Amino acid sequence: MTSVNIKDLYKVENKEVSLNGWVYNLRSIGKIWFMILRDGTGLLQCVVVKKEVEPDVFQLESSLTQESSVTVFGIVRKEPRAPGGYELGVTSIRVHQIAKEYPISPKEHGTDFLMNHRHLWLRSKKQHAIIRIRHQVVKASRDFFDQHGFTLVDSPILTANAVEGTTDLFELGYFDRSAFLTQSGQLYQEAGAMAFGKVYCFGPTFRAEKSKTRRHLTEFWMIEPEMAYCNLDQDMDWAEKYVSYVVKWCLEHCKTELETLERDTSTLEKVIPPFPRITYDDAVDILRKNGVDFQYGGDF
Amino acid sequence: MTSVNIKDLYKVENKEVSLNGWVYNLRSIGKIWFMILRDGTGLLQCVVVKKEVEPDVFQLESSLTQESSVTVFGIVRKEPRAPGGYELGVTSIRVHQIAKEYPISPKEHGTDFLMNHRHLWLRSKKQHAIIRIRHQVVKASRDFFDQHGFTLVDSPILTANAVEGTTDLFELGYFDRSAFLTQSGQLYQEAGAMAFGKVYCFGPTFRAEKSKTRRHLTEFWMIEPEMAYCNLDQDMDWAEKYVSYVVKWCLEHCKTELETLERDTSTLEKVIPPFPRITYDDAVDILRKNGVDFQYGGDF
Repeated sequence: MTSVNIKDLYKVENKEVSLNGWVYNLRSIGKIWFMILRDGTGLLQCVVVKKEVEPDVFQLESSLTQESSVTVFGIVRKEPRAPGGYELGVTSIRVHQIAKEYPISPKEHGTDFLMNHRHLWLRSKKQHAIIRIRHQVVKASRDFFDQHGFTLVDSPILTANAVEGTTDLFELGYFDRSAFLTQSGQLYQEAGAMAFGKVYCFGPTFRAEKSKTRRHLTEFWMIEPEMAYCNLDQDMDWAEKYVSYVVKWCLEHCKTELETLERDTSTLEKVIPPFPRITYDDAVDILRKNGVDFQYGGDF
Repeated sequence: MTSVNIKDLYKVENKEVSLNGWVYNLRSIGKIWFMILRDGTGLLQCVVVKKEVEPDVFQLESSLTQESSVTVFGIVRKEPRAPGGYELGVTSIRVHQIAKEYPISPKEHGTDFLMNHRHLWLRSKKQHAIIRIRHQVVKASRDFFDQHGFTLVDSPILTANAVEGTTDLFELGYFDRSAFLTQSGQLYQEAGAMAFGKVYCFGPTFRAEKSKTRRHLTEFWMIEPEMAYCNLDQDMDWAEKYVSYVVKWCLEHCKTELETLERDTSTLEKVIPPFPRITYDDAVDILRKNGVDFQYGGDF
């Protein structure tokens, strides 16, 4: 019997298959009960009818819990009303483990609680969607630079130097001396650009900033392209092309995930080059007209 | 006038173009001199004929040095004897900077010397080839897992726990406590596999091993896939498919680079599944027959 993933069910309509996964939800209407199975690729409604399975399989309804791990056997049927368009007419179920109570319920939990259960929280729909979109952003970013002749030159994480000032660096003992965690691969990319013309790195970056807010991360991934013989206008062209490519890719490949997150995609659909460009002086003017005390010459 | 890269010259045969790059080599035969231009995408022979350029351009032959940065203008001509199949009939040269003596010559240098000039060493043919192959190995690895339904779940670098014992960890101050640099994303991937079925991470990993040999790295990139519901045979299937995909990709996309490194590719061409498989017991027997004092039950 073929073992399949939920996302590939359209290939095995009317066939008997097995699926490995976890119980997402259970609902009974007497002589029939429904199990929503989760396998990481999608959700599937599995229909268990009393007269179609062994008594011990039918009785599982009372012992199965959310996130219990199971292998389900059955016939794939088209069912337009079911999520994904298919359902499974169950012939048997093999239980691998009955899970203890899954601590995350649809009710609101605090951030602390959720972060302490991050390994389980990852199984929920929204966290799934976020990770999948992140994956596609990473993929689209790399594809863009790969397709445009940039060479990947990963910068080291352990460095002897600070790029943007030493106060925000994590320091560690490195055998008989000390080293820092990188804040940016920029210095290495600048040397790389002179060797390869166009280069990029994409790896973790660290900032030991004291401010622990939702907008200050101590560790994050950053993509850093560097080009030789590139002027400011060309640089802006690259930035526009890159950003719009990633947005377009995600709109096309993360439709379901953006729906799960209830995103209004109309704003994303507008991300098409050319973007408006203004001079530094105009930007300073706008800030000052809006009452910002801005020192001319500073960074925005 | 179009600005082009050396690798795209075939698109602009007989056209007048400009190229940005660095002087790789100079050679004179009196009323003609040749400059090999390097732009990161390839090498191009540029032909400077006394009667075809202004006198100050012709005289550049005496002031240009290796790795000086220039923009070269000229007509692209087919030339089967030239590297890359094209040469440039130079009409003009703009010098951006005359480089000081390039310290790396074809003679043998010590590792210390080369590592201290790593930013310049990167410009040489072999280092180029190594970085480009590394790029394609990374790309092929990510493509393989992306194409087979693995979700990218990057594991954090800063961790509170040790995966494989605490003696080899780099420790750092993390605000009012301490943290470690990760040795493996495995624990996070195991949680991820239960959420997504198949996951991978691919990032830097750290080992504070005392042995500083060529075979002991303190920092390296590691790809770590994890699958739920996968038995040992299926795991080996994935490993075979992955390794052979990466090798095949590199054979197809790094032909020139493998030639530069003078690799005998016949060994790589043999990397085709299925690979021979032996049991743990057979492997132990082989070791012992070869005089290795191996403790049954240990790791290989």
